[in-house]
Amino acid sequence: MRTRQVASGPESIESAYDEALAGPGTLLAAVEAEREGADAVVIDCMGDPALEAARERLTVPVLGPGQTGMHMAALLGHRFAVLAVLPRLTSRFEAAAARYGLASALASVRAVDVPVLAIESAGDELVARMTEQAVAAVREDGAHVLLLGCTGMIGLAERLRPALDAAGLDGVPVVDPVPATVQVAAGLVRAGLRASGLSYPPPPRKRYLGVPVA
Amino acid sequence: MRTRQVASGPESIESAYDEALAGPGTLLAAVEAEREGADAVVIDCMGDPALEAARERLTVPVLGPGQTGMHMAALLGHRFAVLAVLPRLTSRFEAAAARYGLASALASVRAVDVPVLAIESAGDELVARMTEQAVAAVREDGAHVLLLGCTGMIGLAERLRPALDAAGLDGVPVVDPVPATVQVAAGLVRAGLRASGLSYPPPPRKRYLGVPVA
Amino acid sequence: MRTRQVASGPESIESAYDEALAGPGTLLAAVEAEREGADAVVIDCMGDPALEAARERLTVPVLGPGQTGMHMAALLGHRFAVLAVLPRLTSRFEAAAARYGLASALASVRAVDVPVLAIESAGDELVARMTEQAVAAVREDGAHVLLLGCTGMIGLAERLRPALDAAGLDGVPVVDPVPATVQVAAGLVRAGLRASGLSYPPPPRKRYLGVPVA
Amino acid sequence: MRTRQVASGPESIESAYDEALAGPGTLLAAVEAEREGADAVVIDCMGDPALEAARERLTVPVLGPGQTGMHMAALLGHRFAVLAVLPRLTSRFEAAAARYGLASALASVRAVDVPVLAIESAGDELVARMTEQAVAAVREDGAHVLLLGCTGMIGLAERLRPALDAAGLDGVPVVDPVPATVQVAAGLVRAGLRASGLSYPPPPRKRYLGVPVA
Amino acid sequence: MRTRQVASGPESIESAYDEALAGPGTLLAAVEAEREGADAVVIDCMGDPALEAARERLTVPVLGPGQTGMHMAALLGHRFAVLAVLPRLTSRFEAAAARYGLASALASVRAVDVPVLAIESAGDELVARMTEQAVAAVREDGAHVLLLGCTGMIGLAERLRPALDAAGLDGVPVVDPVPATVQVAAGLVRAGLRASGLSYPPPPRKRYLGVPVA
Amino acid sequence: MRTRQVASGPESIESAYDEALAGPGTLLAAVEAEREGADAVVIDCMGDPALEAARERLTVPVLGPGQTGMHMAALLGHRFAVLAVLPRLTSRFEAAAARYGLASALASVRAVDVPVLAIESAGDELVARMTEQAVAAVREDGAHVLLLGCTGMIGLAERLRPALDAAGLDGVPVVDPVPATVQVAAGLVRAGLRASGLSYPPPPRKRYLGVPVA
Repeated sequence: MRTRQVASGPESIESAYDEALAGPGTLLAAVEAEREGADAVVIDCMGDPALEAARERLTVPVLGPGQTGMHMAALLGHRFAVLAVLPRLTSRFEAAAARYGLASALASVRAVDVPVLAIESAGDELVARMTEQAVAAVREDGAHVLLLGCTGMIGLAERLRPALDAAGLDGVPVVDPVPATVQVAAGLVRAGLRASGLSYPPPPRKRYLGVPVA
Repeated sequence: MRTRQVASGPESIESAYDEALAGPGTLLAAVEAEREGADAVVIDCMGDPALEAARERLTVPVLGPGQTGMHMAALLGHRFAVLAVLPRLTSRFEAAAARYGLASALASVRAVDVPVLAIESAGDELVARMTEQAVAAVREDGAHVLLLGCTGMIGLAERLRPALDAAGLDGVPVVDPVPATVQVAAGLVRAGLRASGLSYPPPPRKRYLGVPVA
Repeated sequence: MRTRQVASGPESIESAYDEALAGPGTLLAAVEAEREGADAVVIDCMGDPALEAARERLTVPVLGPGQTGMHMAALLGHRFAVLAVLPRLTSRFEAAAARYGLASALASVRAVDVPVLAIESAGDELVARMTEQAVAAVREDGAHVLLLGCTGMIGLAERLRPALDAAGLDGVPVVDPVPATVQVAAGLVRAGLRASGLSYPPPPRKRYLGVPVA
Repeated sequence: MRTRQVASGPESIESAYDEALAGPGTLLAAVEAEREGADAVVIDCMGDPALEAARERLTVPVLGPGQTGMHMAALLGHRFAVLAVLPRLTSRFEAAAARYGLASALASVRAVDVPVLAIESAGDELVARMTEQAVAAVREDGAHVLLLGCTGMIGLAERLRPALDAAGLDGVPVVDPVPATVQVAAGLVRAGLRASGLSYPPPPRKRYLGVPVA
Repeated sequence: MRTRQVASGPESIESAYDEALAGPGTLLAAVEAEREGADAVVIDCMGDPALEAARERLTVPVLGPGQTGMHMAALLGHRFAVLAVLPRLTSRFEAAAARYGLASALASVRAVDVPVLAIESAGDELVARMTEQAVAAVREDGAHVLLLGCTGMIGLAERLRPALDAAGLDGVPVVDPVPATVQVAAGLVRAGLRASGLSYPPPPRKRYLGVPVA
Repeated sequence: MRTRQVASGPESIESAYDEALAGPGTLLAAVEAEREGADAVVIDCMGDPALEAARERLTVPVLGPGQTGMHMAALLGHRFAVLAVLPRLTSRFEAAAARYGLASALASVRAVDVPVLAIESAGDELVARMTEQAVAAVREDGAHVLLLGCTGMIGLAERLRPALDAAGLDGVPVVDPVPATVQVAAGLVRAGLRASGLSYPPPPRKRYLGVPVA
């Protein structure tokens, strides 16, 4: 597995605005990854920027941790909650669940209120906030499964685990979306599957002005 | 009302790929329109590219003819059908209706199979194909209202009218999405309304690399 | 724009019972309005009494502020709340949202508990109650847009605005349903549109006993 | 069981217009039935005119064959179809199923195209048309249960039965809505149940002008 | 009406595990009931174990109090709540409502936290807990109708009634599912109806190993 | 990976009746598999018999190819179709999609009309029928992805591929549910995940009569 940095766009993705500006750069990085021989592409952002565009343009499987993580969370229990970084993303996750046909499986979105770029340095404080929101999602919203709401939270499922166990939520799975999506991507490659060409047909050729044509 | 050409992006928008590449340029044009004193911004594409991003970034009302046209069509009757340019857009319109919370009002999407750039020259042939699909949408899919599925079809509602009347569909309204959306935009301006700042809060400031920062 | 008083029925509409008794009189007033040359008819009650009946009977556009206000509110943000006059109307608004295909956009209905006929004299007290419920709708129910739930509240959006701003809800639009519906009606007239003749075909002629046949 | 004729309104109910004009008279008849000691009231029209109003006004159980018949049909199989009298009622039944929370159980509505008042004299011709539509509902729309769509069709389930059996649909139940609703009403009376006072609270007292105050 | 004890399986049904193990025994008891001349079979458990299997295998009507009770509750008001015995059953009732197409009518599930076998001896304590949860379901969850969530609660509706009245919930119907289902079953028998043979066709004959072939 | 034969129950599963009788035996086999050290259990039937019961009883991940296959199919495109063995299973798959929260992603269920036990010997004839139904699902029902509807069809995706390619459906993925589910199970094991203990808590201990207590 190889990670490729997106060369243009915002330094983090926390809004529809960021997502729109991240689109072309993400697409370009996906095209280059395929050109260099990637068997599959996983977009490293829960907003799944350029997911559909990349599926149209590439011939290898393309997955987003937003969509894939939600399906995995739905598979593991009655309803899931998303632990988002910022309150402003709550309605975006709700809209994403509707777009992915999973609205009935979403119990709630709860925000820890820490910007993406501050996750790395947030340490124990972040884990404490995540635990607090996780407990509320279970006790008040009826969530049975938790989904980390930012790919920058990678690895935090392990640190959240003991805190959840201590809070009596030892039976509640925490889905870390990027590893989960990488597993699904690997499975698709082994099975020779990619997203449907009817849902994502190759884009018609045409002239593009002023964009890093991918 | 003033029209502003988007300076960068694809020459037409017919895929998720085109939409992703059209995003930044559309956003830039919207920002410039506001800067030049526009009271409201209407995005001229049924895919509503950068709609949410522009709502976050601008302080004037921003509307897309996809979302607004669907609401107007839903208001006028039991179920509506979209007359799309290309078959590949069928599932995209279905997904848009779900995203906009209007899935139950969408009877069907039917394609006339004419690329966007060929609409202008398609003439009577296009009207004939649109009539054929409109009749099928009503008779076979239960549509009671029609929504033109491409903003390049502007003005064709009038040419479609006599053909529909001749086919016995004289009671079926045809929504021309751009004029309809302009009317709604004007109404919002008069009422002092714009989209919710909770749904579309201003984007957090941060560094952007290699994008025409809007 | 002209206002026409309904000559028969209840003095206010606050129940299914009132709506049923308001039907024939509303219908008669709508027919007379059309006869006198109205370009469009807007029914002045959030329960939209006789809306479908009037659409069948008239040839000009007929709109109800319940349906139209909900579509406008849905267009402006993720989810909207209705500020109703009485608690007993909560389930009626929920049922209306389902009937209009907008259930997923309705965050909640909250009642200020003031009868329709007391609105005019309620003054600051009413605005205070509306603000309280509006804040609760946003903070507890996730509403991003507010819809006034009684046409007798006309003009109160302006008085609510400063109170909402003071409560930190300055980005939350308040839809005043009658003016919003009048704007949409004007737009439909300009576009030559009316509700679908397939959804609302002219009623079959027959004998009517003891009703003010409209 | 006693039948009471509604004294004012249309001679048959085939439109939203008819329903609006039938409301007050139906309500009055229901009030009188209760006054004369009825244990329960069943409204004799699939459009359930004044159902909610009567539930608010009366203290005995009130049922409509539209709502009750749909619940019974949904109970008996995967999806049901309604055999309506007129094509114009198709969208009205679809809207009713949504209003009653049963949209996912409705396979289709199919019309035999015979006006209500012609049912009695239609005889074998009507049964033949009903059979034809029933077969289409099962074969083409996936219906597993049939619901007669007009209370004027009472008793026709028995005549439809042999024709359906001959067509190979012997396992398909046909719900005759009025008898089915009377059974449910009797069961509610025995159990001491009526519709919820929270959903249908008594209407606030007020002045009514020009209506046969019920 | 006759009651038949199921000869094999768990002593009470409180989990998916119990339901799976109760299936064959329930089926066998249903087959025997039909063989002995029963006109209809009502399964005495809110989980409706073996309901669909029995419908396939028997020729008389088979009803489950879970499905039938939910339909009756939905018929009586805007939304209903289930009073379950154990918290672990909450998500199972939510899933059942979805499976029966009644998700939009379910306000909430609230548990009294008393095991099935302790119901009989719980006495006043149980009624107090049920009242407490019923009040919360109405006040906090918007329930307008209550459905007893365990067939072991039979008869408790009558004891709950005065407590609810005292709490100001005198208009809230309480559906006791077994009597309600028996009433519906009797109505179906009178009408000559049973569940659809298309939804529940007779099972294909084949070899069965080690099961009490029913 | 190891396969374990279920010791009691029907020789194939083609009805609700078969599923009910297969429950205890499947559960017993799952328990034994865990006891012998299995890291995860995949139930080898698209009806997912005893899935929830086994999740309650076991501590390792348990997956069913019905639920998992539907999630994978939904992940790969706009809508999927199930290729079922028998027409009678159509409504069962529709009900399963609703139960799993994936109803909006299901385009259709189409049956090849070959009993489970005849699959192995059906050969080219079976592939021809599957191709025919697959083409119809895509052309008539709008399916973009196909899901094999019986685990006995294992390996047939490969044989179907060239036939679909020849029919112009080369972009349509075919999900072979057992291998796909095994991949997901392996991924869950690697990630240390299992289904939620809140959705599937261990069953309460109690007495069981006449069942192979698992």
